[in-house]
Amino acid sequence: MPVHSKRGETLNHSPIRVLMPYARKAKEAGTHVFHLNIGQPDIETPPQALEAIRSNKESIIPYGPSEGLPTLRSRVANYYTKLGISVNSEDIFVTTGASEAILFALFSCCDEFDEVIIPEPFYANYIGFGHTSSIKIVPIPSSIESEFALPTVEKFEELITPKTKAIFLCNPGNPTGCLYSKAELEQLLELVKKYDLYLIVDEVYREFCYDEVFTSVLTFDEMSEHIIVIDSISKVFSSCGARVGFLVTKNKAIQKVVEKYAQLRLCPPYYGQKLAEVCYDYAEDYIPKAKEEYRKRREVLYNGLKAIEGVNCYKPKAAFYNMTALPLKDANHFCQWMLESFNHEGKTVMFAPGSGFYFHRAYGLDQVRIAYILNEHDLSDALVCLAEGIKKYKTLGF
Amino acid sequence: MPVHSKRGETLNHSPIRVLMPYARKAKEAGTHVFHLNIGQPDIETPPQALEAIRSNKESIIPYGPSEGLPTLRSRVANYYTKLGISVNSEDIFVTTGASEAILFALFSCCDEFDEVIIPEPFYANYIGFGHTSSIKIVPIPSSIESEFALPTVEKFEELITPKTKAIFLCNPGNPTGCLYSKAELEQLLELVKKYDLYLIVDEVYREFCYDEVFTSVLTFDEMSEHIIVIDSISKVFSSCGARVGFLVTKNKAIQKVVEKYAQLRLCPPYYGQKLAEVCYDYAEDYIPKAKEEYRKRREVLYNGLKAIEGVNCYKPKAAFYNMTALPLKDANHFCQWMLESFNHEGKTVMFAPGSGFYFHRAYGLDQVRIAYILNEHDLSDALVCLAEGIKKYKTLGF
Repeated sequence: MPVHSKRGETLNHSPIRVLMPYARKAKEAGTHVFHLNIGQPDIETPPQALEAIRSNKESIIPYGPSEGLPTLRSRVANYYTKLGISVNSEDIFVTTGASEAILFALFSCCDEFDEVIIPEPFYANYIGFGHTSSIKIVPIPSSIESEFALPTVEKFEELITPKTKAIFLCNPGNPTGCLYSKAELEQLLELVKKYDLYLIVDEVYREFCYDEVFTSVLTFDEMSEHIIVIDSISKVFSSCGARVGFLVTKNKAIQKVVEKYAQLRLCPPYYGQKLAEVCYDYAEDYIPKAKEEYRKRREVLYNGLKAIEGVNCYKPKAAFYNMTALPLKDANHFCQWMLESFNHEGKTVMFAPGSGFYFHRAYGLDQVRIAYILNEHDLSDALVCLAEGIKKYKTLGF
Repeated sequence: MPVHSKRGETLNHSPIRVLMPYARKAKEAGTHVFHLNIGQPDIETPPQALEAIRSNKESIIPYGPSEGLPTLRSRVANYYTKLGISVNSEDIFVTTGASEAILFALFSCCDEFDEVIIPEPFYANYIGFGHTSSIKIVPIPSSIESEFALPTVEKFEELITPKTKAIFLCNPGNPTGCLYSKAELEQLLELVKKYDLYLIVDEVYREFCYDEVFTSVLTFDEMSEHIIVIDSISKVFSSCGARVGFLVTKNKAIQKVVEKYAQLRLCPPYYGQKLAEVCYDYAEDYIPKAKEEYRKRREVLYNGLKAIEGVNCYKPKAAFYNMTALPLKDANHFCQWMLESFNHEGKTVMFAPGSGFYFHRAYGLDQVRIAYILNEHDLSDALVCLAEGIKKYKTLGF
């Protein structure tokens, strides 16, 4: 039998999806599973966009342009303009989800074994994208004690080597819910300029900031050669399955390279792009309502967690995630146990074990990432399950 | 300004799409461009599948399973069963087009700098997929004189080194239209067994064989640990923009690795998968009609090409492509000239320059790939343009 690749062997399972088989078994056994493990909102996709797909008259679903449909690119440019960001259609590449945009960015900026500095904990799949593109991810720790604040510029500078090509941020943060300020970004851009690096920022949660104003790195016009932004319709328009994301940059050399990677996979999905077009047409009406809904859920989550003895939590500033430290040693085991061996009145909860979001696997062992993407009623129910689960788990002596 | 990656710099433009800006300019100037450069059929997508999308009632477009919707995987398994191929749902991974399936196969079988042997000319993007996955493509020449027949097993064996991990075929062939026989595949499988390699076969044109019976490598049950098949709805169901492909293998170790790459990009596009489901429901009615249409177009193309003085062509056995040698030195220049400087009664044709389908860039310089994906009337018109174009081009002394 031929041997599969070593890189395939060493690639990690996604911590967000790795426990899925246990969730399936729990459901088969009749238990209701609240999915707080994955950023899949229960909010409806913009109905006008769904309707546009229903009234689509095309009789052939053809290849589109590799860089995306011009009708979509111009709408996204228009959306950015309203945010006070000056970009043109040509600066926007439509990708198959933000996932592909991240890969395109890494392949375009970095060669094999180049280094990219990322504050940890970070979106777990960044490890996989680094693995796929053969780059070295250099994590820079942030901690729950400081509510995962951005490390100081000095800490970043310490990690820069001749192989460093980029600093990568997720702002607002998944899995932390943190938000980096304009002043912090300015400091980081000084560093990026000093060492001639790229700053790649995943801004897919941009629209969900509850207390403070969001600053996009795209507003720093004078630094535009250094900046690549990752975006997506998945979260903001509750359209995760459409697989439509964006890579945005004004750097013409990077654009030329991205164009080649885009041609290689022919084009992004047609229907997703048609859906996205209409999402942007109704953005101003839709987004504030979605944001208000998440704001309410954040209160439910925060108050619910605070009420559970021993839980270490903070109020996330943005996005719809929260890293929470539980009063137990092994959150991986606990999360699996919640699916395999526990239910409260026929219900249980699935979380993403926190350690999967750290590069250093010894970190975050007592943490879980909680996505507050269910309605207030379900979220409250899920928190009751969590409280009861912790109680029961501790009586078992784990 | 930061420097983009060397790998991004050395990645080639797709020969199928690289002349697109010239086509756009020709259209802006009022010239009608027949697109024989790209395998984008003008045949309608199955209307029942389009209708299923129109009557979709979902109010949220959510993430699906990473390996694809179970309802689609079971339909594809059923389709294979009817072809006399024994595979289960679990052996089928839904991917974002065949492009992604090829990348998953290469990443799963090969580590960086491993070697994969591929008969050339081959689908140009294989070079890009090899580039992205940092593997070495080892081309094995086939030639227009033998109508691009499969090289002998001895020729393959000569190229095998300790780094060789797989032999990769496209059967039926893009860009050649050739078809490999059962006996040829058996011989190659002996070699694969002897050296413990994978045999990866891109069978996306399986349904379009006009003279002889097609043999899928999946029918060699006793060799199933060695076999990975690439498939797609794009061509067979005229649904290129849906971005739905498949990776099929019974090798459990490879399945486990593919699952991780699949999780990394979350899931394939939702709407494309829903479209694909219904395509397979109507496959038995739809496919024979599409095949008959391409058979007729093949006659038009072959007879048209034969009638042009100096053109070296053969009758392709399968798929809907043909490599044709033109009576001129530089087909790249000719293809661009046809778009930039020529029209016949307001019309011109776009081809994909042949050299882009060879690893050795000195090969195929006088060749073009012609996709016979337009209806007989347009195809005839396009061939008139070609004949007139060649005549004019030669008078200019090129």
